[in-house]
Amino acid sequence: MARLGFVGLGIMGKPMAGHLLAAGHTVAVYNRSPKAMEELAAKGAVACSSCREVAGQSDIVFIMVPDTADVELVLFGENGLAEGLKSGSTVVDMSTISPVATWDFAKRLGDKGIRMLDAPVSGGQVGAEQATLSIMVGGDPAVFEEILPLFELLGKKITYIGGHGTGQTCKAANQTVVAGTIQVISEALLFASKAGADPAKVREALLGGFAQSRILEVHGERMIARNFKPGFRVKLQQKDLNIVLQTARNIGLSMPVTAIAQEMYNSVSAHDGADLDHSALVQALERLAHHQIA
Amino acid sequence: MARLGFVGLGIMGKPMAGHLLAAGHTVAVYNRSPKAMEELAAKGAVACSSCREVAGQSDIVFIMVPDTADVELVLFGENGLAEGLKSGSTVVDMSTISPVATWDFAKRLGDKGIRMLDAPVSGGQVGAEQATLSIMVGGDPAVFEEILPLFELLGKKITYIGGHGTGQTCKAANQTVVAGTIQVISEALLFASKAGADPAKVREALLGGFAQSRILEVHGERMIARNFKPGFRVKLQQKDLNIVLQTARNIGLSMPVTAIAQEMYNSVSAHDGADLDHSALVQALERLAHHQIA
Repeated sequence: MARLGFVGLGIMGKPMAGHLLAAGHTVAVYNRSPKAMEELAAKGAVACSSCREVAGQSDIVFIMVPDTADVELVLFGENGLAEGLKSGSTVVDMSTISPVATWDFAKRLGDKGIRMLDAPVSGGQVGAEQATLSIMVGGDPAVFEEILPLFELLGKKITYIGGHGTGQTCKAANQTVVAGTIQVISEALLFASKAGADPAKVREALLGGFAQSRILEVHGERMIARNFKPGFRVKLQQKDLNIVLQTARNIGLSMPVTAIAQEMYNSVSAHDGADLDHSALVQALERLAHHQIA
Repeated sequence: MARLGFVGLGIMGKPMAGHLLAAGHTVAVYNRSPKAMEELAAKGAVACSSCREVAGQSDIVFIMVPDTADVELVLFGENGLAEGLKSGSTVVDMSTISPVATWDFAKRLGDKGIRMLDAPVSGGQVGAEQATLSIMVGGDPAVFEEILPLFELLGKKITYIGGHGTGQTCKAANQTVVAGTIQVISEALLFASKAGADPAKVREALLGGFAQSRILEVHGERMIARNFKPGFRVKLQQKDLNIVLQTARNIGLSMPVTAIAQEMYNSVSAHDGADLDHSALVQALERLAHHQIA
């Protein structure tokens, strides 16, 4: 059995590393704050004092940290993975980060003979805990086939997309659609309400036709019920849209609606809404219109 | 049996009037060009020389014409319905027009004792021909109950929304969601493609989660397959978004994404795309990005 490593034991990483352990793998772990490491060590994980130490004991290292800069630090910072990983070993980055940076990281690791997959997930904390994550994977297809049995310990819908960065690209596209659709549903339901129609009846009528979406179903309901308990937090949606918009600039792409959705989230944050569910985007439009849906 | 009238025998109105005739009703009809009238007269309809003449022979008159100004002309123009309809008769406007104008029309008719329902439809030519339209109805609930058996000859999903104009409001919200979602899906698939991922694989992965929508399914597929044969034409989508944006201005509402979608359709029209399917919005973004999805 391959020796595994796991860096980043937050609300996502800790249960994911736990599933790998539970399947009988040896797992060397590192996390900035020691508490999560201690918990996993009690279940048999090997707590390490640096990423480099994890690398020294692993053939395959998973990363689950918040953002692009964090992944860069884990890989190439002082005492980072790159200092300890041997040629032929594999890095599986399951964080949600920039596709462009991912191309760069894969190339720098490749120069040392280290293989990389980008494998961001959707499904959140519940998906991580119940091992029902959706996993979108980019990189060498042969490496994907090798790692697939490990992905199957973590998630349900596992899709190989293409070369390096395409897992991240797919995740970014997903977050674009989610935020943009929340924006569109907000405009439509607010229009209905301010024009004097019952938004609940309009939502119901629209679900039967081409306007149907999971967002209309779930987030439309939340807007009408004024239930903004997360769910997926505004500040995470902002972080993901930042990746999308930075990448769009890098690759020469104009995304006007995605940019507007981000501005609306910036406004929600300005009104202390950073920790609300992302359906709270509607609040920014409600303030613009001086009218609340419900 | 109530005596029926029908004004506007285009690709929608002609089959709809046909269903009313086929159910055994007498139907007085008027249309600007005589050909459709002659066809229906051959099936038993009474061809009239003006809206006023239709009104003189009808208790309930249906209207199915292109836009707000057309409805106003049919109702209040020279030899219009209002000159011929008796107190207690009913106008059922199934055109897609401005909710604000609808409030006004209903009030002006109401002053003469004429009752009105706004009952715009979705489902297009196929829905009209097969009597499977979705019908969204605003007006007096008692009048709705009276007319319901006639709606059931024309459509399948019939939803009573609320007071005058709310049927139009619901239809406008529907068109907002449809156009806005097409915009969002265009941005996301173009992002995926320009970043080097296969948009077909990304679409497939996204359909399994919160990004799912009928538009991603149907119009996403059209974008990837480069199939822009209508379907629903760009110029009709422009007309409907114009209603939405005019209404938004009237009622004091800011709809930034809907406005951008309209600008994209304006660009598609500028490139001779007014008669393409509304999924052709993606072409405007493709020109901005100097890159085509597929």
